Amino acid sequence: MHPRLRQFASLLKSHQIDAYLITSDVNIRYLTDFPASESWLLVSPKKSFYVTDSRYTLEARSGLSGVKVEQFAHSIIKTMFGLAGTHRLRNIAFDDRHVSLALFKDLKQACPKGVKLLPKNNIIEQMREIKTVEEINHIRECLRLNLDAYHYLKKVVVPGITEKDALLRLENYVKSRGAGFSFSPIIASGPNSCFPHARVSDRKIRNHEPVLVDMGIDINGYKSDLTRMFFFGKITPLYQKVYDSVAVAQQKAIRMIRPGIPAAEVDHEARNYLAGLKLAKYFGHSLGHGVGLEIHEAPRLSGKSQAVLKEGMVVTVEPAVYLPGQFGVRIEDMVLVTRGGCEVLSRP
Amino acid sequence: MHPRLRQFASLLKSHQIDAYLITSDVNIRYLTDFPASESWLLVSPKKSFYVTDSRYTLEARSGLSGVKVEQFAHSIIKTMFGLAGTHRLRNIAFDDRHVSLALFKDLKQACPKGVKLLPKNNIIEQMREIKTVEEINHIRECLRLNLDAYHYLKKVVVPGITEKDALLRLENYVKSRGAGFSFSPIIASGPNSCFPHARVSDRKIRNHEPVLVDMGIDINGYKSDLTRMFFFGKITPLYQKVYDSVAVAQQKAIRMIRPGIPAAEVDHEARNYLAGLKLAKYFGHSLGHGVGLEIHEAPRLSGKSQAVLKEGMVVTVEPAVYLPGQFGVRIEDMVLVTRGGCEVLSRP
Repeated sequence: MHPRLRQFASLLKSHQIDAYLITSDVNIRYLTDFPASESWLLVSPKKSFYVTDSRYTLEARSGLSGVKVEQFAHSIIKTMFGLAGTHRLRNIAFDDRHVSLALFKDLKQACPKGVKLLPKNNIIEQMREIKTVEEINHIRECLRLNLDAYHYLKKVVVPGITEKDALLRLENYVKSRGAGFSFSPIIASGPNSCFPHARVSDRKIRNHEPVLVDMGIDINGYKSDLTRMFFFGKITPLYQKVYDSVAVAQQKAIRMIRPGIPAAEVDHEARNYLAGLKLAKYFGHSLGHGVGLEIHEAPRLSGKSQAVLKEGMVVTVEPAVYLPGQFGVRIEDMVLVTRGGCEVLSRP
Repeated sequence: MHPRLRQFASLLKSHQIDAYLITSDVNIRYLTDFPASESWLLVSPKKSFYVTDSRYTLEARSGLSGVKVEQFAHSIIKTMFGLAGTHRLRNIAFDDRHVSLALFKDLKQACPKGVKLLPKNNIIEQMREIKTVEEINHIRECLRLNLDAYHYLKKVVVPGITEKDALLRLENYVKSRGAGFSFSPIIASGPNSCFPHARVSDRKIRNHEPVLVDMGIDINGYKSDLTRMFFFGKITPLYQKVYDSVAVAQQKAIRMIRPGIPAAEVDHEARNYLAGLKLAKYFGHSLGHGVGLEIHEAPRLSGKSQAVLKEGMVVTVEPAVYLPGQFGVRIEDMVLVTRGGCEVLSRP
């Protein structure tokens, strides 16, 4: 059995539940290392069940250890409640963000007498916030390739090439290194860089203008996320000023990161600095987010966040300034919260 | 305004609702051609609103026509209900398969007095089932490239190459043609072909064994989905028999396809034929599914399906036989329901 599944199963008793129904693929993957698809994991302290259909049964049996694979023919709901009945699992918790209202209605309707469905969110997400050494190594591996890809891009993103052609080269490079992207990369030149989530266009990159590149690597499910600005030719004083301001805002935020600090304070630090330069109104999104098996996961670094940073968390720090119609600057790095403070994983 | 959005808005009156809240990215894309992300579309007969955050506002304003873009700062829910209040939208429908139980609770809590949230599923999905000429052309374009890619693969999938290397070549080919995949391709050689959704492995493809390849193309959101069997060297009598049986089952099913026939009957036709050969127990999944903006969409061709086929539907027909420990055979084509019967889009 995967140690994370064992740990999770042992947590259930303290929550006074007999079992936990996991419907999220990524949470199943986290607990088992098995790339789940259209299947459920029912975890009890004694035994766990992977409920799947005939397409996945054989693969699941060979890929899952310490988990019983149960094949359903007609209804995953009935098979799951059947298992609950056989093993006397009465209080079954689930995460109500991963169950649609329609599915919940079906679950309620099929729920046998004496069985209760209890929304209990965040138990797995809280485990996922704190990365193990092994997980951090996976992320480091993604970041190494991410930085190599930026090194390669420096040669490719030159005046005259279109954004799409630059992306094609980048894709070939990443593929030749045996990896994939964690999201569709952004290569936004000139005024396109004003759009925080710009799509790659046929626009030719020109001299004397900034290019915003946001890309991440995915290796076996773990992810990285980095944004860099490229510039060729003459830098305007305005661009230089904005770039420096964003860089300082980032440094100030990173310097705050340590166990015990509220995530909202880190966001405020960067935002207040930009506010002093009258640039905060051009910084519309939050400062950062956790990264792991998902490209956006807990904790969020935002003004509204209730999170407090803990050792082992991995977050992005990505202040930005988007001047409408002109250009945008975003600088994004990934930071590990360490016992004594933090380590910028993406600036080795 | 996009004609599909106009059509959908005009449907609302007959459903006696003031507005429809769309939370599904793909449904928003269908109605507007705009690639939505983390945003909502509130449609009323008079006016429609795209509720998004600062990352997407500018792009949405330039990309959406006939839709008002509303930026939210703190709560997409409050902004949406604010619009509903201003425009006196009282009965707001939504699809409860695209709203998590957690989100529904938040919506209920923020719902102003006098406003009702009404689950009304499938209105957009029913529109999407019937493809327009333009959509069919998009799918034809995907299929042309899909067939070219199989033609290319025939040269590449030869004894000695690993599944992963074959995939890499396939990826480069598809990319060089300016397209992407609609799902992660399956290249399953020898006994790996027993797994309906096998993952691509380091296994070397050997002579005298079958290779199952399932791949689809994505061009601007529209998709294709095709499975072909490759074989080199000597064909065993058992493989030949199974292959021929699956091929005949497919032909029989395709011959049934015409407007007015229940989807379940088409599934039965293939399954009954295989049952007569004592092979039905090795065919564990359903016969097929609709394809369009999603790789699996309505209608389903399965024994449980309530759907009746209509002109303009596009479905896969993919009977299969998986002999555990030996090999699997699946043959999958895409079929358009025409006025007089059907057209196999993938066998031009």
